[in-house]
Amino acid sequence: MEFEGSGIGEECGVFGCVAAGEWPTQLEVAQVLTLGLVAIQHRGQESAGIVTSNGASPPTYATHKGMGLVSTAFAPEALLKLRYGNLGICHTRYSTTGISELQNCQPFVVDTLHGQIAVAHNGELVNAQALRRKVMRHGVGLSTSSDSELITQLLALTPPMEEQDAPNWVARIKNLMSETPTSYSLLVMFKDVIYAVRDPYGNRPLCIGRIVPVSKLHSSGAGEEDTEGWVVSSESCSFQSIGAKYYREVLPGEIVQISRHGVKSLSVVPRPEGNLPAFCIFEYVYFARPDSIFEGQMVYTVRQRCGRQLAIEAPTDADVVSTVPESATPAALGYAQQSGLPYIEVLCKNRYVGRTFIQPNTRLRQLGVAKKFGALTDNFAGKRVVLVDDSIVRGNTISPIIKLLKEAGAAEVHIRVASPPIRHPCYMGINIPTKEELIANRPEFQDIAGYIGATSVKYLTVEGLVSAVQGGIASHQQDGKMMGHCTACLTGKYPVELEW
Amino acid sequence: MEFEGSGIGEECGVFGCVAAGEWPTQLEVAQVLTLGLVAIQHRGQESAGIVTSNGASPPTYATHKGMGLVSTAFAPEALLKLRYGNLGICHTRYSTTGISELQNCQPFVVDTLHGQIAVAHNGELVNAQALRRKVMRHGVGLSTSSDSELITQLLALTPPMEEQDAPNWVARIKNLMSETPTSYSLLVMFKDVIYAVRDPYGNRPLCIGRIVPVSKLHSSGAGEEDTEGWVVSSESCSFQSIGAKYYREVLPGEIVQISRHGVKSLSVVPRPEGNLPAFCIFEYVYFARPDSIFEGQMVYTVRQRCGRQLAIEAPTDADVVSTVPESATPAALGYAQQSGLPYIEVLCKNRYVGRTFIQPNTRLRQLGVAKKFGALTDNFAGKRVVLVDDSIVRGNTISPIIKLLKEAGAAEVHIRVASPPIRHPCYMGINIPTKEELIANRPEFQDIAGYIGATSVKYLTVEGLVSAVQGGIASHQQDGKMMGHCTACLTGKYPVELEW
Amino acid sequence: MEFEGSGIGEECGVFGCVAAGEWPTQLEVAQVLTLGLVAIQHRGQESAGIVTSNGASPPTYATHKGMGLVSTAFAPEALLKLRYGNLGICHTRYSTTGISELQNCQPFVVDTLHGQIAVAHNGELVNAQALRRKVMRHGVGLSTSSDSELITQLLALTPPMEEQDAPNWVARIKNLMSETPTSYSLLVMFKDVIYAVRDPYGNRPLCIGRIVPVSKLHSSGAGEEDTEGWVVSSESCSFQSIGAKYYREVLPGEIVQISRHGVKSLSVVPRPEGNLPAFCIFEYVYFARPDSIFEGQMVYTVRQRCGRQLAIEAPTDADVVSTVPESATPAALGYAQQSGLPYIEVLCKNRYVGRTFIQPNTRLRQLGVAKKFGALTDNFAGKRVVLVDDSIVRGNTISPIIKLLKEAGAAEVHIRVASPPIRHPCYMGINIPTKEELIANRPEFQDIAGYIGATSVKYLTVEGLVSAVQGGIASHQQDGKMMGHCTACLTGKYPVELEW
Amino acid sequence: MEFEGSGIGEECGVFGCVAAGEWPTQLEVAQVLTLGLVAIQHRGQESAGIVTSNGASPPTYATHKGMGLVSTAFAPEALLKLRYGNLGICHTRYSTTGISELQNCQPFVVDTLHGQIAVAHNGELVNAQALRRKVMRHGVGLSTSSDSELITQLLALTPPMEEQDAPNWVARIKNLMSETPTSYSLLVMFKDVIYAVRDPYGNRPLCIGRIVPVSKLHSSGAGEEDTEGWVVSSESCSFQSIGAKYYREVLPGEIVQISRHGVKSLSVVPRPEGNLPAFCIFEYVYFARPDSIFEGQMVYTVRQRCGRQLAIEAPTDADVVSTVPESATPAALGYAQQSGLPYIEVLCKNRYVGRTFIQPNTRLRQLGVAKKFGALTDNFAGKRVVLVDDSIVRGNTISPIIKLLKEAGAAEVHIRVASPPIRHPCYMGINIPTKEELIANRPEFQDIAGYIGATSVKYLTVEGLVSAVQGGIASHQQDGKMMGHCTACLTGKYPVELEW
Repeated sequence: MEFEGSGIGEECGVFGCVAAGEWPTQLEVAQVLTLGLVAIQHRGQESAGIVTSNGASPPTYATHKGMGLVSTAFAPEALLKLRYGNLGICHTRYSTTGISELQNCQPFVVDTLHGQIAVAHNGELVNAQALRRKVMRHGVGLSTSSDSELITQLLALTPPMEEQDAPNWVARIKNLMSETPTSYSLLVMFKDVIYAVRDPYGNRPLCIGRIVPVSKLHSSGAGEEDTEGWVVSSESCSFQSIGAKYYREVLPGEIVQISRHGVKSLSVVPRPEGNLPAFCIFEYVYFARPDSIFEGQMVYTVRQRCGRQLAIEAPTDADVVSTVPESATPAALGYAQQSGLPYIEVLCKNRYVGRTFIQPNTRLRQLGVAKKFGALTDNFAGKRVVLVDDSIVRGNTISPIIKLLKEAGAAEVHIRVASPPIRHPCYMGINIPTKEELIANRPEFQDIAGYIGATSVKYLTVEGLVSAVQGGIASHQQDGKMMGHCTACLTGKYPVELEW
Repeated sequence: MEFEGSGIGEECGVFGCVAAGEWPTQLEVAQVLTLGLVAIQHRGQESAGIVTSNGASPPTYATHKGMGLVSTAFAPEALLKLRYGNLGICHTRYSTTGISELQNCQPFVVDTLHGQIAVAHNGELVNAQALRRKVMRHGVGLSTSSDSELITQLLALTPPMEEQDAPNWVARIKNLMSETPTSYSLLVMFKDVIYAVRDPYGNRPLCIGRIVPVSKLHSSGAGEEDTEGWVVSSESCSFQSIGAKYYREVLPGEIVQISRHGVKSLSVVPRPEGNLPAFCIFEYVYFARPDSIFEGQMVYTVRQRCGRQLAIEAPTDADVVSTVPESATPAALGYAQQSGLPYIEVLCKNRYVGRTFIQPNTRLRQLGVAKKFGALTDNFAGKRVVLVDDSIVRGNTISPIIKLLKEAGAAEVHIRVASPPIRHPCYMGINIPTKEELIANRPEFQDIAGYIGATSVKYLTVEGLVSAVQGGIASHQQDGKMMGHCTACLTGKYPVELEW
Repeated sequence: MEFEGSGIGEECGVFGCVAAGEWPTQLEVAQVLTLGLVAIQHRGQESAGIVTSNGASPPTYATHKGMGLVSTAFAPEALLKLRYGNLGICHTRYSTTGISELQNCQPFVVDTLHGQIAVAHNGELVNAQALRRKVMRHGVGLSTSSDSELITQLLALTPPMEEQDAPNWVARIKNLMSETPTSYSLLVMFKDVIYAVRDPYGNRPLCIGRIVPVSKLHSSGAGEEDTEGWVVSSESCSFQSIGAKYYREVLPGEIVQISRHGVKSLSVVPRPEGNLPAFCIFEYVYFARPDSIFEGQMVYTVRQRCGRQLAIEAPTDADVVSTVPESATPAALGYAQQSGLPYIEVLCKNRYVGRTFIQPNTRLRQLGVAKKFGALTDNFAGKRVVLVDDSIVRGNTISPIIKLLKEAGAAEVHIRVASPPIRHPCYMGINIPTKEELIANRPEFQDIAGYIGATSVKYLTVEGLVSAVQGGIASHQQDGKMMGHCTACLTGKYPVELEW
Repeated sequence: MEFEGSGIGEECGVFGCVAAGEWPTQLEVAQVLTLGLVAIQHRGQESAGIVTSNGASPPTYATHKGMGLVSTAFAPEALLKLRYGNLGICHTRYSTTGISELQNCQPFVVDTLHGQIAVAHNGELVNAQALRRKVMRHGVGLSTSSDSELITQLLALTPPMEEQDAPNWVARIKNLMSETPTSYSLLVMFKDVIYAVRDPYGNRPLCIGRIVPVSKLHSSGAGEEDTEGWVVSSESCSFQSIGAKYYREVLPGEIVQISRHGVKSLSVVPRPEGNLPAFCIFEYVYFARPDSIFEGQMVYTVRQRCGRQLAIEAPTDADVVSTVPESATPAALGYAQQSGLPYIEVLCKNRYVGRTFIQPNTRLRQLGVAKKFGALTDNFAGKRVVLVDDSIVRGNTISPIIKLLKEAGAAEVHIRVASPPIRHPCYMGINIPTKEELIANRPEFQDIAGYIGATSVKYLTVEGLVSAVQGGIASHQQDGKMMGHCTACLTGKYPVELEW
């Protein structure tokens, strides 16, 4: 599946860093934040923001936000103004609402009775509307439609207090968690501390890493005393970029305090009795970078297992197996390995096709994806091809690819999808087209192969997906308890009751 | 005095428009707002913002803000998105704090229990710090250092109410006015109405105009029935640009409601017993555009009277009178007329000197203002020149000009300043250098002529200024009551007690 | 007359600088060039270019060109790359053809058998088409429509020579001058020398200045030994900006060599027997900056004399005299002085009206210049106004101004134009509208007052203009010979026969 | 091998289109040109330019050029101005000289005695310096260092002729070809015709395609009568994007005329007796897009054969085979297939790593490529890895990758390079580092494995490469003659004698 235009996207990524040891630190925190953000850029390309704090009392914060990619938004002057930070948080955003303006960029920084806090958020509050009304009833005006501003005002709001009182952010965060069950992975920076919070269902990922000297990065002997800084990120792939070692995940419901003195778990807010965690299964299927680690397993490995499982569930009488580059490649290799069919490449991607300002006319529409993919004709002419994709959302991306392959001489094109059909909306932070637009809900789905022009189409089952995901966690199970995953978009079973 | 670099500046200008009659209107409201804003651009060049409303129930608002001049910030696409407005407010900003970022741009738009309001503000709240603490104690986070956000949250905050209640903006505005005495000229847009508010001291200007058919613009017979729209502006000079007739000023303390049905005075909040109004006298001296009308008199005329008064108070034995272009010209002509000396031009301004990226070296510093002004040598060589300026703030602009004239052959250069020395800070919205930087507070002031290299230097007295300003108002006095003007920066007498 | 939109414009300005004394020089040549260019920016705002040379053998040239104003086109990096220059030339361009592209920017730099030369040109070759054909017949392709590229190729072309021969630029320049009589003021930079050339008719201005220590700038005693560098410019106003003293004009037909050793006249190419020089009289009327000096007199003074002469030729029974700001002010003051009528201001200019992206609708068109000028009503209400303008080209700028004044209460508006009507095209570098568009050639001119809505309209006579211009030159006459000026646009008498 | 930073790059790509049938055409030529250019963008990312002609007599040309990618350089307005073209040529440039300015952008358009011609060029003239001198000796100034301007002036220059003569472009092109043997693939547009020219050695690629209705694109029955337009391109991969069928290659030494009436071979200029063609072998190894076809074979297939050959020449005792994504993947798959070892992925590429403005410090340098590649640890931990790359130029890209893999747990890392070591400069259009920078010429090459940290390093032999390339051409041989390929950068045997 192709990211752009497919209509399915992650909302955001968050990243934070606290320099360890004495301050002012030698660690270039602004640089760590920028690189960390670039490493999770796949989670959002609309805008980027960084806030650093010098950690003093009172602290001085520096903020820079900009539209577009990190590489566009952070010019040298921007980095200059962030440079005195001893800690900081940052955020990259994928717009779900179409309101793509600078004022919606995170992190949000607000001045409160205790001083400034900065908040970066990945996720979507299922009861956002009710919470907005509550906040406004209290007399607060909200200047954006962003959940993150809402969270920030909720933190400022509750409980009311006097100026002279000590700040009680942890109580306020717990209070926030009692108001809204999911979904959020949250970084709250206050003066010299970052609070890393994951909702009780653990719907969005969040993990912690440890910066060590590059020379000790890969030795097992880098002890706590070697720590140069702590980082926290939506995905562990960012740790490699900045020279950090994976430390651990933030647990569902956990509030972790990260300071220059280290990492401290302050609380784990429980779920209602009997409820399992609900980590978004699509992080495995599609969103995350393949080298990230969730629940102890590498995403690439899970995708490969999905491909293997798919080969078991939906074997094909064909000559070769291939991929829709690039995201489906692990699953395709898994399928090939399991089925014993040779793996080949059938499509060559033009990486320079970006936004061109060409008005699409009839001819262009007929040409379909041809400007994006070239067919490697000689590799498959006359052959029966199994083409593995990771998901099919609307069906309008895969269809012209099949046409391209057939016209270039493929004898048969069998589509094998390494995830089940998406049928339901997500209210927890994933941008999914309306129910009507999802191919799996449309009449054409009855003859999907005919509709998209494939010789045959088969999907992975929900059970197959869950077993591919959970099969690898056995030995990593937390506290010996059952893991659970959110499959709402596939099954309609939401982890919490939806109230509007 | 030259605006740039002189270190004294207005904070902002506000402008609003409501189309009269049936909606959707034929009047191009976005265009009226843009032109009105350009006409008061001298009040702020840092950023500009426009918010329009279609006035429906619930209303749809469109917002565009940008850094820089209106002509830079409002590209065609921006105007396109604003085009369906039946009413709107806008704002142009001059940064006083150095935090020059998009998020500080006005108007502020926030979502409240009753729906969205938009606020544009000119002025500075004297008790802003106390109000910020009050708001934050209530649990509201403030995301900017802007008074305008503070005002917006104060409006949202008080009094608390239920969702089903009718919006009571007037009560909320009155409440706001009871919390803070000055200074603010305020536009609050809610759905289909603009509330125009001026603080009880009338410190910042605000006046109302009426758009009529261009054909009737200058006939006295354009009746109320010809009204195509209502406009409200910091300065009346903007009315000429858009084809509107001057209607009236908003009174000190008045809340005026402007709707498609016309203009309605809702309330006039009184000052404490015995307090006079305190309209900023520097609006006359320097800030306002000369064709604007305040208190019934044209600003140009007041400046000319200042020049005449200066000629009476400080006559000079000289050959010619001239001006530091362009702002001091009315005063210089006044001085020439009163003194009987001929008026000539001595300086030619290069209007293309903007920001050049040249690093100033010693040579450049020695050359001073030479890149900005050319001396019209033949006009004054061998002559004794009276050079009239409107004010001297730091003394570092006038000094190189005197040097330029003397080196070009002026026999004598007598500086006559058409306002008294500035000695005190302003807490009501004008950006004035620190006390230490003001030339009038420095030891050099004892021999100011020697310091700046002039043959002689004389200032207008405070009494002279006040009489030049108030002498023209006699026949226009409102309600037969005494007028008062704020002269705090000259006298240190602030209209209200300052609390921090 | 207002520059923008009036349809009459200068083509270009040129400027050059050679550091005196030892190289590498201490003088910041790139800075001098930039400031010099800014000072003649009124001669062209479309694009700007600078070329510097280190003067070595072989030389290293650095070039930067950009669209728009100097302040836009020359960012810090651009200045950085020019910084090692010991000499350089630059150019600012006003597009006459509508082809506004970077490749037409000057100076042109080309590689020849002798090495690189750089050429900057102000003017227009009357026989350009014939010369283009000649060059192309020789087998040279021309990549722009620019006369300057044509000049550069002509210099390269003639006479053909061998690599080992010494460069003979002077012979080549003379050859060029024999091919084309006018109009050009030309700077040719080769290695360590600038050749400054003015066509035999002296149609375009060019003069030389001398950079001295700032401390000696205005003392009469700065001798040749104090010279820090030599500059050459279209207008002397640029000398003030950079701390240079006026040295002398380049004579009509003269080739001057400027090197680190000083200024040397190499040749003065004569005009055909009996022909007078033909310096463009519109440089005095409108184009030049008022503080520039041509033929020994300050432009401002000439304009003032035009105003005085106009008051003699066309006296008015009126109350006050005023100006269309800013270019007509010297003439208006001259008129007032001669007539004894008081000088006042009637219009206030909004200097922030630039390009706004507003689509003009009917209403806007009716409002005319209102967004650009505010009427200073109180100054002239009920009075009979003489409004002095420097020229009227199409009549569509002055007309709405008259309307504005009358509607604001002027009893009468008498237009007095300080130059004769323009009736003919210019083929020598000035952009003048087509004959049909010139108001003086249209039927409406018979009743011009009625057409533009004035009470009366009077123009200065050609004789009046010439006497105002030449009256001041008597004592400065070069070689005791008669001066001549090009009045072709007024009289149709062109200095040379036009061939196409 | 990674493109960026590796220091080896193609110079340029050219593309042209002529609409068939009646003019004005229905075919959107500007769109075809833009898409065609995007498809060969991998050949140059520095600048892009398009020139269209309406083909009339005299023709109207429209030109747009811009820095950066096609998607950046061609905004909607640019496409608008090109839209009336019935034919056009375009160019994308990779800077080899560091002079990255707009004026070096192609195509070059010059005005000649016969009217305007436009030229786009891929290649580098081996005798450029001698030709420049020749042209300048004729009196032509050259304004850029570009070979393409030189070609254009050579075409204009020879032979001299009269205005009334008919244009003789073919004779001029032949004359040009007699002056310079290689390397150039050239498009010359004149009025209504494009001449497509390939140098006698066929050093740079050039091929022709035919636009047919999309519906007939893949049917074998699309006859000549279905032709909607003709296209000519550096690479056939661009034909897919625009809906064109591959037609044929332009032969070495051939001049082809493309007009609305079709394709016509005008001449084939022979090589000196006994000389073979010398098509650049690195087009196969690295530059071309894998789906392009040269000499009848798909580039992907050749690369795969190189991988197979490498497995034969340099077998490895290892567990898995992998690739340095993305360019080495075909060779890696070939190696895996031949060797029987499983193919896996070991690196995950972060496609958002572009230019970040981070100043690299010691830490960053130590981290190496970590911000660009993530290690897919679980795939290879404890395994012996064969890592296939397509070429090693400086050795500084592969080295940190090996480090990354070893630190992530690879037991062994064997580097297998699918091309021979580069040892010599290219004078025919490929940007190769200086001899000293090439790893194969440095002392470290003696122990290259030790130097880059690999367990072992093996290169493909020159013979192996040539056989992999030529082995596939047998059945496609043109005219039954031997094919030849330029291997100068590997062997130092240049196809022509180099003269300076």
